[in-house]
Amino acid sequence: MKTKSTSRFGSRDADDHEIDLRSLFLGPKGENAAVFERLLLEAFRDHVFWRRNFHPEDGFRVHEIEKNSPSYERSISVLSEELLSLLAELKGGVPFFSPRYIGHMCSDLTMASLIGYFATMLYNPNNVAAESSPVTSRMELEVAEQLATMVGYDPARQWGHLTSGGTVANFEALWVARAVKYLPVALRWAAEELGLAELTVQCADHQSANLLDLDLWQLLNMGPTCALDAAEALRQAVADEEKLTAISRHSVSHLGYQEFGRRLGQVFGDNLPPAVVLVPSTAHYSWEKICRSLGIGGGQLVHVPVDNRFRMDPEALWRTLQRLARERQPVIACVTVVGTTEESAVDRVDQILEVRARAAKELGMTFHLHADAAWGGYAISVTRDGDGSRRDYGAALADYAPEIWPEEGVYRALCATEGTDSITIDPHKLGFIPYPAGAINFADSRGRDLVAVDAPYLFHRGASEWGYIGRFIFEGSKPGAAAAAVSMSHKVLPLNARGYGRLIGQTSRGALALHRRLSAGSWEPFRVVPLPTPDLNIVCFAVTHSSLDKLEAANDFATRIYEAMSVGREKGRDTRQVEFFITKTVLRTGEYGSSALPIVERLGFTEADYLGSGGLSVLRCTVMDPFLTTEGDRVDYIEAFATNLRAVMVRELAG
Amino acid sequence: MKTKSTSRFGSRDADDHEIDLRSLFLGPKGENAAVFERLLLEAFRDHVFWRRNFHPEDGFRVHEIEKNSPSYERSISVLSEELLSLLAELKGGVPFFSPRYIGHMCSDLTMASLIGYFATMLYNPNNVAAESSPVTSRMELEVAEQLATMVGYDPARQWGHLTSGGTVANFEALWVARAVKYLPVALRWAAEELGLAELTVQCADHQSANLLDLDLWQLLNMGPTCALDAAEALRQAVADEEKLTAISRHSVSHLGYQEFGRRLGQVFGDNLPPAVVLVPSTAHYSWEKICRSLGIGGGQLVHVPVDNRFRMDPEALWRTLQRLARERQPVIACVTVVGTTEESAVDRVDQILEVRARAAKELGMTFHLHADAAWGGYAISVTRDGDGSRRDYGAALADYAPEIWPEEGVYRALCATEGTDSITIDPHKLGFIPYPAGAINFADSRGRDLVAVDAPYLFHRGASEWGYIGRFIFEGSKPGAAAAAVSMSHKVLPLNARGYGRLIGQTSRGALALHRRLSAGSWEPFRVVPLPTPDLNIVCFAVTHSSLDKLEAANDFATRIYEAMSVGREKGRDTRQVEFFITKTVLRTGEYGSSALPIVERLGFTEADYLGSGGLSVLRCTVMDPFLTTEGDRVDYIEAFATNLRAVMVRELAG
Repeated sequence: MKTKSTSRFGSRDADDHEIDLRSLFLGPKGENAAVFERLLLEAFRDHVFWRRNFHPEDGFRVHEIEKNSPSYERSISVLSEELLSLLAELKGGVPFFSPRYIGHMCSDLTMASLIGYFATMLYNPNNVAAESSPVTSRMELEVAEQLATMVGYDPARQWGHLTSGGTVANFEALWVARAVKYLPVALRWAAEELGLAELTVQCADHQSANLLDLDLWQLLNMGPTCALDAAEALRQAVADEEKLTAISRHSVSHLGYQEFGRRLGQVFGDNLPPAVVLVPSTAHYSWEKICRSLGIGGGQLVHVPVDNRFRMDPEALWRTLQRLARERQPVIACVTVVGTTEESAVDRVDQILEVRARAAKELGMTFHLHADAAWGGYAISVTRDGDGSRRDYGAALADYAPEIWPEEGVYRALCATEGTDSITIDPHKLGFIPYPAGAINFADSRGRDLVAVDAPYLFHRGASEWGYIGRFIFEGSKPGAAAAAVSMSHKVLPLNARGYGRLIGQTSRGALALHRRLSAGSWEPFRVVPLPTPDLNIVCFAVTHSSLDKLEAANDFATRIYEAMSVGREKGRDTRQVEFFITKTVLRTGEYGSSALPIVERLGFTEADYLGSGGLSVLRCTVMDPFLTTEGDRVDYIEAFATNLRAVMVRELAG
Repeated sequence: MKTKSTSRFGSRDADDHEIDLRSLFLGPKGENAAVFERLLLEAFRDHVFWRRNFHPEDGFRVHEIEKNSPSYERSISVLSEELLSLLAELKGGVPFFSPRYIGHMCSDLTMASLIGYFATMLYNPNNVAAESSPVTSRMELEVAEQLATMVGYDPARQWGHLTSGGTVANFEALWVARAVKYLPVALRWAAEELGLAELTVQCADHQSANLLDLDLWQLLNMGPTCALDAAEALRQAVADEEKLTAISRHSVSHLGYQEFGRRLGQVFGDNLPPAVVLVPSTAHYSWEKICRSLGIGGGQLVHVPVDNRFRMDPEALWRTLQRLARERQPVIACVTVVGTTEESAVDRVDQILEVRARAAKELGMTFHLHADAAWGGYAISVTRDGDGSRRDYGAALADYAPEIWPEEGVYRALCATEGTDSITIDPHKLGFIPYPAGAINFADSRGRDLVAVDAPYLFHRGASEWGYIGRFIFEGSKPGAAAAAVSMSHKVLPLNARGYGRLIGQTSRGALALHRRLSAGSWEPFRVVPLPTPDLNIVCFAVTHSSLDKLEAANDFATRIYEAMSVGREKGRDTRQVEFFITKTVLRTGEYGSSALPIVERLGFTEADYLGSGGLSVLRCTVMDPFLTTEGDRVDYIEAFATNLRAVMVRELAG
């Protein structure tokens, strides 16, 4: 018999009813306004009663009679008027809720998360420490564990939490990865300081060795697990907390790059070339910010070429690693992207794991593997059955027949994320949850100890780990309401094929239909060239016209179409004037290299044109609406979009 | 005649009515529930109507008849039940709204910000780019400018924005400060690469010089403004955007510390000691996280001693600078704290500015001065009149007579923040705004160009600066709702003495009353020793009993009292069992040095006891309730707190 308790995947009753996706959102016409309003009021009044129940003997702060005073009335009048002004201004906002919005990664949100956020915001818990958030700190750890379990990390070994967004999540992953990378050097120096003659450790090639005999290259290529094991071995060998501060005193975190580098030179006589971070060419621009700020250097970001499907090329990764090994450049981390921002491309994580294993064996070189699944992370739910087990690929495929979605390679890649060391998943993207809600999960919780800092006013003797998770986290104060929003959403929509999987599958179905329409229709005298079939739910396409003989002109044409089909970046445009909302991006030659060439050529241009113009501008449609292909709707949005696109192209060519 | 337009300080009609503070909050008994509910519903229904007005010809997604389907009913039933479960769980939260809560920096929030947040969350704008937030991106820049104007930065020259909180704001300040610090080196290398023979710049001592003649120490001590001026001079001398990429190619941001350091050694033959960051001993623990993550190194954080009022000692700062100059250690930044987390102490920013000027003159050494006013920033509003001009100190004092608040030194320090290079102010602290809302402002906007990164899918040709502020900001996606919440709150409560100034002044009045009660009462056989009069609104006090002959025992006693007067860090304690909520902290010997000695001695212990026990545990009360001393309340909360404190002390001593 099934129990009714909350499962590891969020939902209370994981597999005994079909979830009606129409019940999830307020809806483009506010179809679910009645139930939303009822629950909203319930949440608000419930909170008010809670206040009144707390020390009922306390007096009233505002007496009814005082509400007639001129200053009170005036103040409330200002509040009311200012709110109405805000409401008027907000109408200049973008209709993310509409099937006509297929621009950025924005859409309608689950009612569960909106109401959950509001209900919790009234309490305003601060998840920096459980003392300010006894309820929502627990929820934060729960939802992080749900995500980790979906990925396939061992729940007993993982560590995860929410962040303000994907940038901070990725930042934290690389911050920890760096600390782990240089840990063996700190251990070596600590062991020497403590007078140890030997400390047996495992190297990347699975050979045992004495830490004190390893050279610098070997120390920097022990791999994350071995390095953390070595720290434990040292702790056991010394078993004196006071002395063990030597580890942190010798760490790069404590010494900083300047002093750490100076000592490396002194001790190892090795002017080590800068350590690098590998990303696919399609990696999000925030990786550059992250490497710059961490002091790694934006220039130490190595772009690994992508293939024609815009996935990191495993062969190119291997060649890159061979070169770096020759040049003795350590790799702090390799970032694999699960759902690129531009194309929703899913790197073949399964193949990248193979390359990493080969590098350890053949090059004696290893590194932290991070999955930037900010966009695509929730799609991993398609690989999970109601009981949490992996589904057959065939079962997943049957759900979306006759569409071939997901492709087998994509499915394998999603499953393979379980082999990564850390993963970023943004609930505020494909979790359909309001900002701010990012999440970072680590497969091995021990790395967090290397970045922990205690606040004197938060960390108390005997406090449980649960009591103060803030010490392991980059950010301090943060909204408990975000944790409640994610928790609520996972409860109505579990992280499996029946829940989020189905929602995201439907968005991909819509994207495939849009892609087919763009590919199949006759656009003469225009040319519309979509990128290859998307791995998830973002459709990009290039445009031109027979009269445009330069790629620059085609790029300008794309920009004009984008401007006509968006609210634009300048103030004052009325969103009601826009029929459909899309966005655009540029496949820059520097990052994309030859991967964009097939598109350029189908557009009728040459490699020289592409290189000369610096890149290819493409229009970009993010499909987050699960109902785009619903039959029997009054409007066929895909057909209407195609009609509108043609009309805009005609107008903009003439203009 | 006064115009009714929005002033620079937020409020629409800045000085023609008294603001009734009782109208600001929902209230401990939900006294303002009726108006809150009315406005909440207004906001929700207005949003629904907006949806219906967008392309009214579009069909319905959920038809009324379908709401009777079993799967829809079942799904809504799950949503309702899960929400009710959430509401039940939330009641385990902490009653920040109550006058009985004087623990952490948490309190009731302005209704304006709560309703503004909710109203905007329904639209879910993403302030990463104006294209996803045409309304709230503007609001974000407006509120940042309001804060900058309150501080006294030149509105035409400043640059500011919101962040997820104080940690990211401080992080960004130091990230920019570092980029500016090393900018002259990058300029020198760029000038050499471009074949310039001369570039006239100003040094910290106001002498003109040729950049190419300066030695490394001089380059690193040009000062923020001179360095940014020098970059402009180079831009004018070269005037070729393509060539000017040389500046960023030679920057520490691009090269990273390892490569930058290697080149410094090669070019200048100078094994420069690590650069440091100066903070007062009382600085927030996040500074350690920040220095570690940036690669500066937690060990390069130099703690400047504080005086007996827990303010950075200017004399000690001067001696520290002398030592660093002798050792040729560059100072990236000095952090001055306006409202410490523990004591609400306000560093004498005015005196620190004098020390900085003297160091430039006498030591040829300068640095970025940052104010960490995460807590105290909003208190600067007491120095502002309705028209934005500075008030006399006497006028401010008269508002709070017979209390002497603020002290003249504090007032001067608040005014002097206008001389800093950057300032962190958290709206989600003394702005009484829900999480997440931090803010960072820079006096000179030009530093942001050094950290800018463009996203290909966001930055479009011809886009205005307003269109994409995300390129200058560490974080990516973030809630526009936070900007609307701050904006709404500033509208009902302007950033001057009549608005936020009065609110915060009243909290300080409450803190002073509490401090007086703790100081004046007879606590025999206990001893209660408050820290000196607080600069703002946090009261700390140490406790002991005649039977406790060791400081460790007194510290344990404080911990037990704290545990009895808080929800605690372990799960399950019912908040209704707690009469008053306080918190505690430790004045650790490492950071506090001799500044805590007077308290230790008044408690009856010696310096040796203090050093031996590692620190002094003190109980901590943050007063955010502006009504704590209201006459005619049914409960005298300060007296009731004192009574409860005594009862708890008796019980815990026995237990």
